[in-house]
Amino acid sequence: MKINKYPQKEIWPELVKRPVIKREQLTELIAGIFNEVDKNGDQALIDFNKKFDKAEIKNIKVSEEEIEISENLISQELKFAIQQAKENITKFHASQISEIQKIETTKGVVCWRENRAIEKVGIYIPGGTAPLFSTVLMLAIPAQLAGCKEIILCTPPDKNGNINPAILYTAKLCGVTKIFKIGGAQAIAAMTLGTESIPNVYKIFGPGNQYVVAAKEFAQKYNVAIDMPAGPSEVLVIADEQSIPEYCAADLLSQAEHGSDSQVIFISIDLKILEETIKEIVKQIKELPRNEFAQQSLKNSHFILLKSIDEALEFSNLYAPEHLILALKDFEKYITKIQNAGSVFLGNYSCESAGDYASGTNHTLPTNGFAKNYSGVSLDSFAKKITFQNLSQEGLQNLGKTIEIMAEAEGLFAHKNAVSIRLK
Amino acid sequence: MKINKYPQKEIWPELVKRPVIKREQLTELIAGIFNEVDKNGDQALIDFNKKFDKAEIKNIKVSEEEIEISENLISQELKFAIQQAKENITKFHASQISEIQKIETTKGVVCWRENRAIEKVGIYIPGGTAPLFSTVLMLAIPAQLAGCKEIILCTPPDKNGNINPAILYTAKLCGVTKIFKIGGAQAIAAMTLGTESIPNVYKIFGPGNQYVVAAKEFAQKYNVAIDMPAGPSEVLVIADEQSIPEYCAADLLSQAEHGSDSQVIFISIDLKILEETIKEIVKQIKELPRNEFAQQSLKNSHFILLKSIDEALEFSNLYAPEHLILALKDFEKYITKIQNAGSVFLGNYSCESAGDYASGTNHTLPTNGFAKNYSGVSLDSFAKKITFQNLSQEGLQNLGKTIEIMAEAEGLFAHKNAVSIRLK
Repeated sequence: MKINKYPQKEIWPELVKRPVIKREQLTELIAGIFNEVDKNGDQALIDFNKKFDKAEIKNIKVSEEEIEISENLISQELKFAIQQAKENITKFHASQISEIQKIETTKGVVCWRENRAIEKVGIYIPGGTAPLFSTVLMLAIPAQLAGCKEIILCTPPDKNGNINPAILYTAKLCGVTKIFKIGGAQAIAAMTLGTESIPNVYKIFGPGNQYVVAAKEFAQKYNVAIDMPAGPSEVLVIADEQSIPEYCAADLLSQAEHGSDSQVIFISIDLKILEETIKEIVKQIKELPRNEFAQQSLKNSHFILLKSIDEALEFSNLYAPEHLILALKDFEKYITKIQNAGSVFLGNYSCESAGDYASGTNHTLPTNGFAKNYSGVSLDSFAKKITFQNLSQEGLQNLGKTIEIMAEAEGLFAHKNAVSIRLK
Repeated sequence: MKINKYPQKEIWPELVKRPVIKREQLTELIAGIFNEVDKNGDQALIDFNKKFDKAEIKNIKVSEEEIEISENLISQELKFAIQQAKENITKFHASQISEIQKIETTKGVVCWRENRAIEKVGIYIPGGTAPLFSTVLMLAIPAQLAGCKEIILCTPPDKNGNINPAILYTAKLCGVTKIFKIGGAQAIAAMTLGTESIPNVYKIFGPGNQYVVAAKEFAQKYNVAIDMPAGPSEVLVIADEQSIPEYCAADLLSQAEHGSDSQVIFISIDLKILEETIKEIVKQIKELPRNEFAQQSLKNSHFILLKSIDEALEFSNLYAPEHLILALKDFEKYITKIQNAGSVFLGNYSCESAGDYASGTNHTLPTNGFAKNYSGVSLDSFAKKITFQNLSQEGLQNLGKTIEIMAEAEGLFAHKNAVSIRLK
C-alpha cells in the first residue's frame, strides 16, 4: 500500500483504470451450452449438474417441501434480520412507484405514461463462497413490487443436491414463484430458452462468475434483456482531517474481502489520516477469515493524497465508483458535485454494509466505470413505461397542420395523409 | 393481403414472428472501421466520407456559419412547425423530471435518489431517403432537459458535403453542442473512441442501417451504452365495427411507407371493417410517392379477424408492437389490459403521425418484440439515478444488529466489522 501524493492530473486517467480482467474467449463454450440446453432441455441441465456441480439430482425444481423445511433450518435471529431488511428495501423501492400524470401538451392532445411490469423475470444467485440471500432480497422485492407475474430463481446445488436454506427462505418470503437447482451458464441458457420445467423469461438479473457473465451477454442475442454489464465490485472513500481512520479502514476492507479482483480507492486530503488508515488496515486485516482475498484486492488499490475535497470529487467523478463513501462531517455541501457514482454513503455512520444489506437501497449497482452511463437496479428495472396519447378531434385540428408540414418535409406522405384524411 | 379468419391460438406464435432480417456477419468489417478510426482519427473519417459518401470534405465539423445559414434555407412554415413540436415534446419530457424524495426506512436511516445527467451523449441521424429532423427533436430535447453537457450529433453529408438545413436548424434549436459530417459505422466509432475533433461519448442514440446497428452493438465492447436494440418499425391496429376504414388504412400505410422491412398488423373483430380497410389501402396506396416500400412491407403483414377486443389485446400483448392503435370509441376500458407495447394511440383522431412528430411523446421506441422488456426513450434515458444514504449514529444503532447477522450468515466478516467497529 503505497501513498500516491498529489498526483498530476495528467496521470489521473492511469489511476482510474480498472485492473484488466483476462477474459477468455468463452463464446464457443457458451454457444455449446445453449445448444445443449435447447436440444435436450431438463436432461441437459441434469447432466450439467452432474458434470459441473458434482450433484446428482432428479428434480431440478425445488419442491414445496424443501422450501417449507428451510424455515426450520435457519436461526430465528437471521429470519428477523432478513425480515427487517425486507421491510426497509420494500419501503424504499415502493417509494419509486410513480403516479400517472396526464399532460395536455396542446389543447385536445393528452399524453401520459403508464408502468407495466416485465411479465417474466429470472434471478441468478451464484453458489460459491457466500450464500447471497441478500441479493435475493435486492432482486425479488422490486420484482414483486413491480408486479412481475413470474419470478424464477436459479442457483447451483451443493454436492448433496441442496440449496442453502437462507436462500430458499428469502426467496419464498419475497414472492419468488419457482426455484431451480441449476447454476452457471446453463442456468442462464435455461432461463433464456425455457425447458420442460423452466419457463423462459424476458429479463435476467444477478451476479455470477465469468461463465455466467458471458452467458448473460450471449442471452441478449435471443432478445432477452439483462440488468447491466458486469464488473468486479469497488469502493472509493473520501476523507478529510476529521475522518476516523478505524472506520475508513473497515469500509475499505469490507469491499476488499469480496474477491481478489475487487478494487478499493482511498483519497484523503490529510496525510496523517491517510497513514493512520493504512495502519488500521494492516491491523484489521489480520482478523479476517477472507484475509487472502482482501490482501490480493489491496494490491489493485490506490491510496491517494489530494489537495481538497473538490479535487477528490473530480477524481471520483472520473473514476465513477460503484460505491462512494464521503467520510466527512460536512458532506451536505458536496452532494451536488457528485456526478458519477452508483450509490453514495454519507457521513461517519453510513457504512457500505448498510446499503449492502438492510438500509433499503439496492446493492445491484454499476461497476467498472458504468456509473457514468447506467443506474443501479431499481423498481424501474422490472417494468416498462408505455406512453399513451389521446387526441380529440379538436386536438388534431390544433396540431394537424404542424404534423402535415413536418411529414412532408421528411418526404413521408403517408404520414401526412393520416392527418389530412381525418381533417377533410 | 389475405385475411386470416379466427386463427387458432396454437398458430399465434407463428403470426407474431417478425420477418427474419438477414444479418450479414459484419463484425470483422466493423472492427476494421473502429481500428482505422482509432489509429487515424479525423483523417480516417475524411477518407471514409470520400469512400462511402462520395463527399470530399476538409472540415468534418459543421461551422457556425453553416448552422446560421440553415435558418434561411427552410421555410417559415417549417420553422413554426418544428417549434410547435419542440414545445410539446419539451412539455411532455419535462413532466418526467422527478422530485427528490427522502425516505426514512428506519429511524435515523434516510435514503433517496438523485438524477444526474449522462455528461456526454451522441446522436446519430441517418442520411438516406428522408432527412430525419424529427429524430433530432426526439433525442436532443430530452438530452438538453436532462442536463447533458455535451450533446454531439453525427450525420452523413451529401455528395456536395452538405447537411440538410432542417437537421441543422433543429439541432441548433435543441441545444446540440457540436455537429459532424460523418455517417455510418465510422460515425459510431468516432463517438465511441473520440478523435481530434469529435469527443468520445458515454451513450449513443439514434437509428441507422445495418452497419450503424452493428457498430452500436460493437461500441458496447468499449463500455459505451446505447439507447436500445434495433429492429424495423411496426404498428398493430385494433378495430371494431365502429372503426373508420379510411383512417385505419391511412395509419397502416403510414407505417408501411417507412421501409420494405416495416410490418403492419391489422386486427378487426368485424369482417366488413376488415374488408373495407383492405379496399381503402388499395385505393390510398396508389397516391403514395413511397408506394414501392409500402407494397413490399404489406407482404410481411397480417390482416386478422378475431372474436373480441379482449382476444385482440391478447394477440397484441404476445406480439408486443412498437406502436399500438386502438381505433375504438370505447378505448378507456381496454387500457389496463395493454401489457406489452411501445406507444399507444387511443381513439379515432390519435394517428401514429401525431406521436411521430409533434404530440409530445417520444418516437424512439422498442421494436421487434422488445416492448416486452424495454421502454422507449424518455428523459430517464439521458440520466442516471444515484442512490444516497445517511445513517445517524442512532440509525446505525437501530439497524446494526441486522446488518451484522446477515453479513455473518453470508460469511462476510469485514462487512460485519464495518458495523461492529462503529457500535463499539
